[in-house]
Amino acid sequence: MSDSREAEVLRANASFYDAFRAGDFEALDAAWARNLPVACIHPGWQILRGRELVMQSWRSILFGGNRPDIHCDDTHCHLLGDFAFVTCLERIGEGALTATNVFAREDSAWRLVHHQAGPLSQVPNDQPSGPLN
Amino acid sequence: MSDSREAEVLRANASFYDAFRAGDFEALDAAWARNLPVACIHPGWQILRGRELVMQSWRSILFGGNRPDIHCDDTHCHLLGDFAFVTCLERIGEGALTATNVFAREDSAWRLVHHQAGPLSQVPNDQPSGPLN
Repeated sequence: MSDSREAEVLRANASFYDAFRAGDFEALDAAWARNLPVACIHPGWQILRGRELVMQSWRSILFGGNRPDIHCDDTHCHLLGDFAFVTCLERIGEGALTATNVFAREDSAWRLVHHQAGPLSQVPNDQPSGPLN
Repeated sequence: MSDSREAEVLRANASFYDAFRAGDFEALDAAWARNLPVACIHPGWQILRGRELVMQSWRSILFGGNRPDIHCDDTHCHLLGDFAFVTCLERIGEGALTATNVFAREDSAWRLVHHQAGPLSQVPNDQPSGPLN
């Protein structure tokens, strides 16, 4: 049971990155919760709180001309009942970011309520297991 | 009721930063969940998963000689039942980081299950309300 919930969360996480990579705003919008409180911290950006600001930021990223060819790697689901957070690497070309994606159940689906991504000092070639410094 | 739960989460968040600032490893250790899955992403570091790696990282930060004079600001609790995430600024001297702290209920207390902090491109002087770029 728990395994299948983890698989559901990981599918929701994969759909989010598929939408991001494809520049599919409708799919990306659908990946985010509609009624639960949401927030987002893009790399280097201030904290965005509330669905309007968060979706406005994604619109500017998808349609601003710098949409990255992003691929999710080293993905792990940390399940906590009806909530979960995913930690993963976001690989963009030769670089990578570390990311947290928080999911909650809304209308029988796993939806994003929070995303934070930030830079890595060194990009690992394989599965990371410890601090760099 | 919801307000009081938010206040509890914010107190747990404040205790975490008090312990961090004071270099109080015991208090910081107590702020983290013991049985739930935990993870941590320090600025620039690889993803740490599992309590042993996470607490080892905090030990190295608290006792490594570079413990920052850290103060939490612009703190907001996003409550989701028995689960919550806090978004905040971590002010360190003239600089600041953005942070996500994920909390869950364990043994009738709010305990950290995840922390991610990352750099800000520009440090805001007051409450942020939108993206920088």
